[in-house]
Amino acid sequence: MRNYPTIEDIREAQARLKPHIRHTPILRAEKIEPAAGCQVYLKPETLQITGAFKIRGALNKALSLSREEIANGIIATSSGNHAQGLAYAARMLDVKAILVLPVTTPKIKIANTKALGAEVVLFDGDTAARWKKVYEIAKENHYAVIHAFEDPLVMAGQGTIGCEILEDLKDVDTVIIPMGGGGLISGIATAIKETKPSVRVIGAEPALTPKYYHSRINKERTSLPLENTIADGLRISVPGQNPYPIIEKYVDEIVLVDDAHIIAGMRALAKDAKLIAEPAASIGIGALLAGTIKVKPDEKVCVVLTGGNWDLCDLADVYKLIE
Amino acid sequence: MRNYPTIEDIREAQARLKPHIRHTPILRAEKIEPAAGCQVYLKPETLQITGAFKIRGALNKALSLSREEIANGIIATSSGNHAQGLAYAARMLDVKAILVLPVTTPKIKIANTKALGAEVVLFDGDTAARWKKVYEIAKENHYAVIHAFEDPLVMAGQGTIGCEILEDLKDVDTVIIPMGGGGLISGIATAIKETKPSVRVIGAEPALTPKYYHSRINKERTSLPLENTIADGLRISVPGQNPYPIIEKYVDEIVLVDDAHIIAGMRALAKDAKLIAEPAASIGIGALLAGTIKVKPDEKVCVVLTGGNWDLCDLADVYKLIE
Repeated sequence: MRNYPTIEDIREAQARLKPHIRHTPILRAEKIEPAAGCQVYLKPETLQITGAFKIRGALNKALSLSREEIANGIIATSSGNHAQGLAYAARMLDVKAILVLPVTTPKIKIANTKALGAEVVLFDGDTAARWKKVYEIAKENHYAVIHAFEDPLVMAGQGTIGCEILEDLKDVDTVIIPMGGGGLISGIATAIKETKPSVRVIGAEPALTPKYYHSRINKERTSLPLENTIADGLRISVPGQNPYPIIEKYVDEIVLVDDAHIIAGMRALAKDAKLIAEPAASIGIGALLAGTIKVKPDEKVCVVLTGGNWDLCDLADVYKLIE
Repeated sequence: MRNYPTIEDIREAQARLKPHIRHTPILRAEKIEPAAGCQVYLKPETLQITGAFKIRGALNKALSLSREEIANGIIATSSGNHAQGLAYAARMLDVKAILVLPVTTPKIKIANTKALGAEVVLFDGDTAARWKKVYEIAKENHYAVIHAFEDPLVMAGQGTIGCEILEDLKDVDTVIIPMGGGGLISGIATAIKETKPSVRVIGAEPALTPKYYHSRINKERTSLPLENTIADGLRISVPGQNPYPIIEKYVDEIVLVDDAHIIAGMRALAKDAKLIAEPAASIGIGALLAGTIKVKPDEKVCVVLTGGNWDLCDLADVYKLIE
């Protein structure tokens, strides 16, 4: 089986998902432009069903499996947003969803996952140990595992965002995408580079866990110690195995953003675009505000906002900070 | 001159505004529905240019005046969002904007108005005194006055929201609109009732200043003492003179919402729809959460969110509240 999606897979995903998900709008953020130094367009997946893009990949995969394969249930581990996407897909398909979540998952993500009817197993251990647990439970109970980023059908689902950007912002010059497991950026980069290779694709990752940045320098997947960045959605120690070669092939630049600029991005999105974005979703705006990406004033830069699921109280702490 | 807009005026406004403003999306808010008891659709003018609907009316009026009439400048008073709309229109038309604002205006509204290049005059006094000041300054300097809600062309501009709702949500049953000066609701109600009279139009006003509610009971425009509701955008003591008869003709129900439910609306919009809404904009969701409007589970209710211009620090205070 192929371990990467093609543009055809992504177009199929688009048709499959159409009746079920939201085609999110592109919103120009004029007020952020003076500080960003370019034209800024937002792709707010914060406004997607379940408040994050993850429903696209989870549902594309779930809809591709046979009724028999998913009859007993679907299972995964996630830092939170994939959990909600999977739980939503399971509810839609009327099957059981089981989510193994880190004990540190934000309360809102746990609550939303449970509210969608999923069973939540809180697990204290690193990503590898959590996945081991998932495969154990899956084998015992004949559950179908839907990986958050290694599965090409999940990547294809996330890639539909790339098609929507090219449709709605025909003369886009640059797209900035957050990098966690790599499922999102590999999907979007495939959609863009296999349709319009002249568009510049930039990945942004937290400076505290520069796994893609170092992997590119080292020319191999490099594991780093897990540092406690505020961007919980991007807290992962090694690039996804299947996404990694796609990223090396299609992502033009990888930039690092420190937590202070991730926070500046959250605040700018709230103040100047009236959008609630979680830290992971704010990293692209953070990169622009930090000036780490070379841009021109008339360059049309589209920033993918991945999700908005963060505890209201924690958001308040960020909004309260003195400038 | 007519003191009310017709559906033709509103359609003309729509054509006039099209190249300049944002056709905001309709977003379904599934997560608010269990508490609301109906299908909830949001019309987020928070995502409009300048972060509020007011640009529609201000720009429609400004574009309708002759170059000569506006040559020296345009002037108004406002609780803040009309000021930004007018300042934006003036900048676009390359004329001077002068805004007389109450000393209590939220800092973000003052800062945004100044950032758009307008001259701000802070004034300590009630609405009538502020308007007197505006007309004095206007007469002295030959400025064109653009009233925030009394002008039929301003109402027509705001009414374009009604046309967009009918276009994008064809089977809408009910529309809920905040009531301040009355320019917004008179425009939208005209658009809706002169196109599809079966749609129920509901106005929501703060329980602390129930001016429209009492005016309807008294069968005449009734002035009330100005109470300090959190919804600064709706803080006005008497219904607008020209909007009032339109509201009596076209608005089916007027509901009162206390500040606690306005706050609950703000929090629900942040938590469940990832949108930043100022208190005035949250009153419709507050009304649904309070259960003051009779709705059915399959009823499609569209709630107009007027604006998102509120100081980040004050938003944080609201998000920090314990449920």
